[in-house]
Amino acid sequence: MALNLLESPLYGTLFGDAELSEILGDTQDISRMVLFERKLALVQGTLGVIPAEVGHAIDHGLAGAELDLGPLAQGVASSGVPVPALVSELRRHLPEQHGQWLHWGATSQDAIDTAHVLGWQAALDVLQPRLATLLDMLVAQSRANESTVMAGRTRSQIATPITFGLRIAQWAAPLIEAETEISSVREKALRVQFGGASGANTAIAPHGSAIADALADALGLAASPPWHTNRNGPLALANWLLGVSTALDKMAGDLILMMRPEIAEAQAGTGGGSSTMPQKANPVGPETIRVLAQLIRNAHAGLAAAATHDEERDGTAWPLDWVLLPQMLVATGAALRHATTLAETLEPCADRMAATLASQSGVMAEQASFILAQTLPRPEAQALVKQAVATSKPLPEALAELAPGTDWQAELDPMSVVEPCRDTAERILSGRTSNP
Amino acid sequence: MALNLLESPLYGTLFGDAELSEILGDTQDISRMVLFERKLALVQGTLGVIPAEVGHAIDHGLAGAELDLGPLAQGVASSGVPVPALVSELRRHLPEQHGQWLHWGATSQDAIDTAHVLGWQAALDVLQPRLATLLDMLVAQSRANESTVMAGRTRSQIATPITFGLRIAQWAAPLIEAETEISSVREKALRVQFGGASGANTAIAPHGSAIADALADALGLAASPPWHTNRNGPLALANWLLGVSTALDKMAGDLILMMRPEIAEAQAGTGGGSSTMPQKANPVGPETIRVLAQLIRNAHAGLAAAATHDEERDGTAWPLDWVLLPQMLVATGAALRHATTLAETLEPCADRMAATLASQSGVMAEQASFILAQTLPRPEAQALVKQAVATSKPLPEALAELAPGTDWQAELDPMSVVEPCRDTAERILSGRTSNP
Amino acid sequence: MALNLLESPLYGTLFGDAELSEILGDTQDISRMVLFERKLALVQGTLGVIPAEVGHAIDHGLAGAELDLGPLAQGVASSGVPVPALVSELRRHLPEQHGQWLHWGATSQDAIDTAHVLGWQAALDVLQPRLATLLDMLVAQSRANESTVMAGRTRSQIATPITFGLRIAQWAAPLIEAETEISSVREKALRVQFGGASGANTAIAPHGSAIADALADALGLAASPPWHTNRNGPLALANWLLGVSTALDKMAGDLILMMRPEIAEAQAGTGGGSSTMPQKANPVGPETIRVLAQLIRNAHAGLAAAATHDEERDGTAWPLDWVLLPQMLVATGAALRHATTLAETLEPCADRMAATLASQSGVMAEQASFILAQTLPRPEAQALVKQAVATSKPLPEALAELAPGTDWQAELDPMSVVEPCRDTAERILSGRTSNP
Amino acid sequence: MALNLLESPLYGTLFGDAELSEILGDTQDISRMVLFERKLALVQGTLGVIPAEVGHAIDHGLAGAELDLGPLAQGVASSGVPVPALVSELRRHLPEQHGQWLHWGATSQDAIDTAHVLGWQAALDVLQPRLATLLDMLVAQSRANESTVMAGRTRSQIATPITFGLRIAQWAAPLIEAETEISSVREKALRVQFGGASGANTAIAPHGSAIADALADALGLAASPPWHTNRNGPLALANWLLGVSTALDKMAGDLILMMRPEIAEAQAGTGGGSSTMPQKANPVGPETIRVLAQLIRNAHAGLAAAATHDEERDGTAWPLDWVLLPQMLVATGAALRHATTLAETLEPCADRMAATLASQSGVMAEQASFILAQTLPRPEAQALVKQAVATSKPLPEALAELAPGTDWQAELDPMSVVEPCRDTAERILSGRTSNP
Repeated sequence: MALNLLESPLYGTLFGDAELSEILGDTQDISRMVLFERKLALVQGTLGVIPAEVGHAIDHGLAGAELDLGPLAQGVASSGVPVPALVSELRRHLPEQHGQWLHWGATSQDAIDTAHVLGWQAALDVLQPRLATLLDMLVAQSRANESTVMAGRTRSQIATPITFGLRIAQWAAPLIEAETEISSVREKALRVQFGGASGANTAIAPHGSAIADALADALGLAASPPWHTNRNGPLALANWLLGVSTALDKMAGDLILMMRPEIAEAQAGTGGGSSTMPQKANPVGPETIRVLAQLIRNAHAGLAAAATHDEERDGTAWPLDWVLLPQMLVATGAALRHATTLAETLEPCADRMAATLASQSGVMAEQASFILAQTLPRPEAQALVKQAVATSKPLPEALAELAPGTDWQAELDPMSVVEPCRDTAERILSGRTSNP
Repeated sequence: MALNLLESPLYGTLFGDAELSEILGDTQDISRMVLFERKLALVQGTLGVIPAEVGHAIDHGLAGAELDLGPLAQGVASSGVPVPALVSELRRHLPEQHGQWLHWGATSQDAIDTAHVLGWQAALDVLQPRLATLLDMLVAQSRANESTVMAGRTRSQIATPITFGLRIAQWAAPLIEAETEISSVREKALRVQFGGASGANTAIAPHGSAIADALADALGLAASPPWHTNRNGPLALANWLLGVSTALDKMAGDLILMMRPEIAEAQAGTGGGSSTMPQKANPVGPETIRVLAQLIRNAHAGLAAAATHDEERDGTAWPLDWVLLPQMLVATGAALRHATTLAETLEPCADRMAATLASQSGVMAEQASFILAQTLPRPEAQALVKQAVATSKPLPEALAELAPGTDWQAELDPMSVVEPCRDTAERILSGRTSNP
Repeated sequence: MALNLLESPLYGTLFGDAELSEILGDTQDISRMVLFERKLALVQGTLGVIPAEVGHAIDHGLAGAELDLGPLAQGVASSGVPVPALVSELRRHLPEQHGQWLHWGATSQDAIDTAHVLGWQAALDVLQPRLATLLDMLVAQSRANESTVMAGRTRSQIATPITFGLRIAQWAAPLIEAETEISSVREKALRVQFGGASGANTAIAPHGSAIADALADALGLAASPPWHTNRNGPLALANWLLGVSTALDKMAGDLILMMRPEIAEAQAGTGGGSSTMPQKANPVGPETIRVLAQLIRNAHAGLAAAATHDEERDGTAWPLDWVLLPQMLVATGAALRHATTLAETLEPCADRMAATLASQSGVMAEQASFILAQTLPRPEAQALVKQAVATSKPLPEALAELAPGTDWQAELDPMSVVEPCRDTAERILSGRTSNP
Repeated sequence: MALNLLESPLYGTLFGDAELSEILGDTQDISRMVLFERKLALVQGTLGVIPAEVGHAIDHGLAGAELDLGPLAQGVASSGVPVPALVSELRRHLPEQHGQWLHWGATSQDAIDTAHVLGWQAALDVLQPRLATLLDMLVAQSRANESTVMAGRTRSQIATPITFGLRIAQWAAPLIEAETEISSVREKALRVQFGGASGANTAIAPHGSAIADALADALGLAASPPWHTNRNGPLALANWLLGVSTALDKMAGDLILMMRPEIAEAQAGTGGGSSTMPQKANPVGPETIRVLAQLIRNAHAGLAAAATHDEERDGTAWPLDWVLLPQMLVATGAALRHATTLAETLEPCADRMAATLASQSGVMAEQASFILAQTLPRPEAQALVKQAVATSKPLPEALAELAPGTDWQAELDPMSVVEPCRDTAERILSGRTSNP
């Protein structure tokens, strides 16, 4: 029981991610607001909106500023945002004649949104290589298992054989697309916010756009008109995170099924012990990914509900962004970490896979019906196969009696699927061009 | 930017609730798991399932046990739940011959769910008097404003006059129902969990039910068969919290509208300052309530998604309960706190209310049409009133010309609504019987 | 592909419910609005608010009124609600001097909400016996399977043995609670709506409350002050439907697992054929229930989002109730139908259950450790059992070597769980008191 | 009350869209499945997988096939999908020796997903020009109102002046981005589905990829490996629709505020009448858009919940796509239609805008503080302005006394914001490059 599985002392190690937590926590967030104020002064000085030397002095003067969160928290409690208190605190680090030029023409949302964007950027810089590493492993595992034949399952039933390599490639498929999309997500989400009180920079006209562009440049962000009420940027990032975590959720769900004792066709991760049953090994890693995926879906729905901002700026919707995107970023980071461990330790149980195939006489039924349909009307072919499946004999044997003249043993060898599965898997994996 | 607005150093003061956070945090949660283990041993001793003296010794021996969260967090990381590590740690506080009787026949979920239930109970003990206090104030404010006439608004348009007292009574209406329901919510949600490994207490048969009942008794909870996969209890609590926060959300939304400068018919709370606009006072309190209400809706949807548990116990759904219910409890507590401040400081601006009524000639149009319809066919009456509204004159004046013979000034006095509004308000307020 | 799985020509037979669809469709809904207007006039006549003979004339005059939806749809298109057009149409069925007294003092929301409440009532009258029938079957199946031993599964792993009867009882558990709660849900949700323009019945003061009470009486609904913005009633119904469908979702999920070919411990329903694989039988019934449960969760979240109504009446939130509650009612009805078929045709595969138990040497491990712990420190007992499980021998045999002196074959007989499972199941089933 | 506001006889005219409903309904959907089967046979004939003349014969033979939904609905009821029944029905339209080659190597999901993709494409072909038309109007309205000064509002309070043109440009901003993204959405979502039973086209190896590519080509879709469980395509479309509807929701929300009688700064659409209040005009258009936006958010959350598909194909998640995407498409189409009417009829009430500005002495406070801060420390400047605002005089007058020496009347003329607002608006509007 905790208000936050991602960071609680008890649960954070499993569900959270220390590296991302630190990036997205209050302290670094405030540092990024300070960076916004520093670079704003700097570019305003350069553009002659404020005295040039003041711009430099603010930039340097606040470079090492250490701030106590206490007064800022007080500021939040009274005004709902930390910026007025932050500006006051920062002024105490500057000579009076400089301090007054701080936050010139900016509104709280400019500082906060830009700081958040910088935080998202830093988090994406962590997530992107994690995703690449996971994909490296999934690609390797897919290829290592390109000849490992197993029963495909559709609608929870045994269908036709596939390879474990193909299934792994299908786990990778949406992640490969996510990797390709990350640059366009960065472009959409990582934009500077600078619009002033009502989003038109009227107090510092006609310099608004020039300042915004220079600031974007100084901070390594995309230039943009003010987007106070246009939450497409955060939504693009949220959509991307939802896609990644959905992909991991699928991999985890499949693993939980494969690791059930009655199926036992794969092992991955190290199972958790039970408090009362000596023999048990619970699939902690996949379970954790599924829990995180649900938290991410929740957060996405909350962001969508809060994406409609009234009038020029909206204090009822905006704070949802502050918390839900960081949650999604950390949860995705943690899920990627667990998925990587699972991919790393993933081992098929080829014996069990073969045993399942052997015990399911219907698994080659479709193949048999296609072969028979070359010479028989298809409904007759299907009926014949159904008849063969209904006997208690292995399918090749049953068909040898019912439809002699074909080397059923050879034709119905599950190994025949290796080639088309490899082709399909390679078609998926070859989509990975962006990050070779 | 924070992973948790409810507890971050920067945002927790505004969005969170220190009292409830402490109750629902890891430390007290672990204490409640210890309490579960102590009382389990005690009742098992009493029932002769374990040696009676061991039961007492465990109960006393662990009474003051102080536990380091570190090893428990390690346990969570490896097994997904803190209980195996907790049991190991607790054994170190006991003589070896006692320790082995600890957690006798219980499964992790027994300890965790029961500890959580105890946490919900403690949180409800905080929320219930807060709700009562808020209702006391709303009832008082409703009655204090029983003659304060204002324009009712339906579908965002000026409708007919009401009293501010009636609007406040309508804010209170769902809260009064929530107050009445709290005892049935407690009954449904606050039940002991004790089922052992697969929910049938087979390892300690035939003592399962007797232990569960005695344990419920010892902990002040309702007796229950094992409900490992039946999440009706947590859902009942979640539904109740959703109802309370929806009611507060409505009050907050109405206040934001009333506190707009163009309407300005009420003031409440102390407005937040702006970082750049000297004149502004933002409605921080109502905004915060709306943000919390959205977080609560998110959490509820997450709980609903996680209420379907597979087979005998489910590790992918269950952890959502651990975090989402505490979030809902804290957010509701914080919202109640803000709502109470708003109710306390609520002041109508009667002049503005009167000015709105005076400027909206249509506000008594329905009343006029009902009077005319006593003698005219109603469509004609409505047409006549429309015609009168379309003139630029005050409605009574216009009607005096168009339909002479009635004392329109008297008949269309907005004060005429005071009586029926008081009746309706009292009808609502008199529903508050459970907590006089 | 359809805008509405519940009613499309192609999908409605599977996902929908013709009986409930008709009850909740536009035509009967309009009929219920007419009933509202008839009974309103009748009670207003009785109370002397309108001429008594007019009240009777309206009640009788509109009794068989057949209305074309066309003009009403036009009315919706122009005003957002059907009521103004409905009142106009109804006036055409009445003498002019009567027609003007129609809808006297009422607002659109009074007619619509009350009509909807009557629709919910009619739908509950269908759902309640369906739930009772399903419970009858589940109770019977639970008892019929009280000695059918199977492996319990927790966190997707084989745990300790249970009976199939206990699992079925756990499916029933939340449904039994739902059956008990239905009367309080009716009480909360089935209340008359009558408040007039701004919810205070000012146009017909001082008769508002008297009319509302008489109308409630005439329609068989609970009396209530106006609840235009207090959506606790629809939320109570939605919460109940969410609970029922969550219970059915759990049953369906368990069945899908049990009906997998690798597990094959139960059969239920009649499997769907495949378009290409002759041997397949898909679990159409349980799949359908899961799809419906997801639709119901969606609808619930939408209702929660729309439960906050602004000011006196809110046109942006209210229409969500119109569609989401009917969807939930129909989807629950369809899910109950499928669940009943499944319960009816449910058959355990006792051989497979026994085979699973026999193949999982760990399944009695907890039991063994409890027996050993009577004489050994528990950690040593657990270690010994782990060692025994790790051998390839059946557990009783392995233990006979490692810990001789106990009749392990007898002690570890899975049939030993029958008794405690029956006790637990009966404890659950005996909670069904409301509908014997 | 209806199961589907988008199509019910009573509500469909307002909430639905007949053109899109027809495209996305069962009948055209089945036609698209037939098209899939025809073109599949054709390309398989061309590639020599089936006899070439059979391919042509099937393509032509089914070209005008008229199918009764009845047997297909029966098929859905028994197997959960219409494809097996569809294939049977289609075979009755073909000579027996041709019919058996129908649906060769395909699985139900191939036919259904591809048919759905074609439906999405047809719907996008309707939505795209609607979006363009709406944007044309918003751009024109923004420019027509580039000098219409009004009070900006932030956090529900009067902030600094802006132009109505800027606000309209901000409404357009996310829609302009959506228009730019539509081609990449088409690329991601409109891909052929062809994988056979388990997604590796094993039954028709080694022709799977060649068939898939030729089929994509024949149907005008993007080539793709099988994406049975990779729902990134539908999610991309859903994300896009969520973005569009969020933008419309914001425009609608702002309009509802602007059309309130107390604000009355704009009119748009034609207000709906009330059943009891002669004077009222309800904002039906904006209300409808808000309702649709909520339905779209619900549907998106449902799709996200159903985007995790188990194993090779998943019958519990997949049907959610069938209904939720069509709902989103129709609701977005209807919302675009309403928004276009609103944009077309949008008229500012410049007098009221000016009156609001005149009555809010603080509206130029930020500007005054920036002017004063050129010569005073900024905190002193802000304090002086606060003092001036606190007097009852107009701000220029008050400042003339408190800080003489500046032509305050000229400096604080709200018209000074026209230029920077135009710049910002043009910056936004110039982003519209994709659809000139």
